[in-house]
Amino acid sequence: MVETRDPDCLFCKIAAGELNTPFLVETDDVVAFADIAPQAPTHVLVVPKRHISSASALNGDDAGLLSELVAVANQVAKEQGVDQSGYRILTNVGDDAGQTVHHLHLHVLGGRPLATLG
Amino acid sequence: MVETRDPDCLFCKIAAGELNTPFLVETDDVVAFADIAPQAPTHVLVVPKRHISSASALNGDDAGLLSELVAVANQVAKEQGVDQSGYRILTNVGDDAGQTVHHLHLHVLGGRPLATLG
Repeated sequence: MVETRDPDCLFCKIAAGELNTPFLVETDDVVAFADIAPQAPTHVLVVPKRHISSASALNGDDAGLLSELVAVANQVAKEQGVDQSGYRILTNVGDDAGQTVHHLHLHVLGGRPLATLG
Repeated sequence: MVETRDPDCLFCKIAAGELNTPFLVETDDVVAFADIAPQAPTHVLVVPKRHISSASALNGDDAGLLSELVAVANQVAKEQGVDQSGYRILTNVGDDAGQTVHHLHLHVLGGRPLATLG
């Protein structure tokens, strides 16, 4: 797995700790931090440290990383106390989905009954 | 990987072909089919053939399956012509998220600008 980084990418900077963002979880390859504009009581982003533009760029070589991203999302749900009440894991690809940062990130949402899917 | 099936599970029946559901994509381990109550012009479900209750039950042994689920979601987006305009991949866990079938499924949504995340 080649480590890559985009010098202009906000989430590359955050994942590298350059913005002093508090991490809720950090593993070798993944960080989780609170969304700056939360849309639910729990709204956490789970982000690979390596720059990947979106889920559309994932391939079989990334299976381990993808599994780690989901494991961290599940861990976040437990730590936030929403694992029993329920939570949504989602990722947006491109403009129609409202992807604003072009670095793969999973949203973990919970803490209230969630609305429609999109 | 142990193959398991829940005899009372709707998506186990669908994945086994018992309800004659048209599959948009089928691989060894995954099927994709249209959501029966679409919430966007493109709304497809991507489902493992093996019974897994939700994303919260995934572990490291499922990395290959998870990667295949996302690969099929990306393939669906291409085949539905929303890969350039954008799409959302999401999965719901538990009541607050509105999980109605307790068999892991990824929603793939697109075809119009999507609304909020939940």
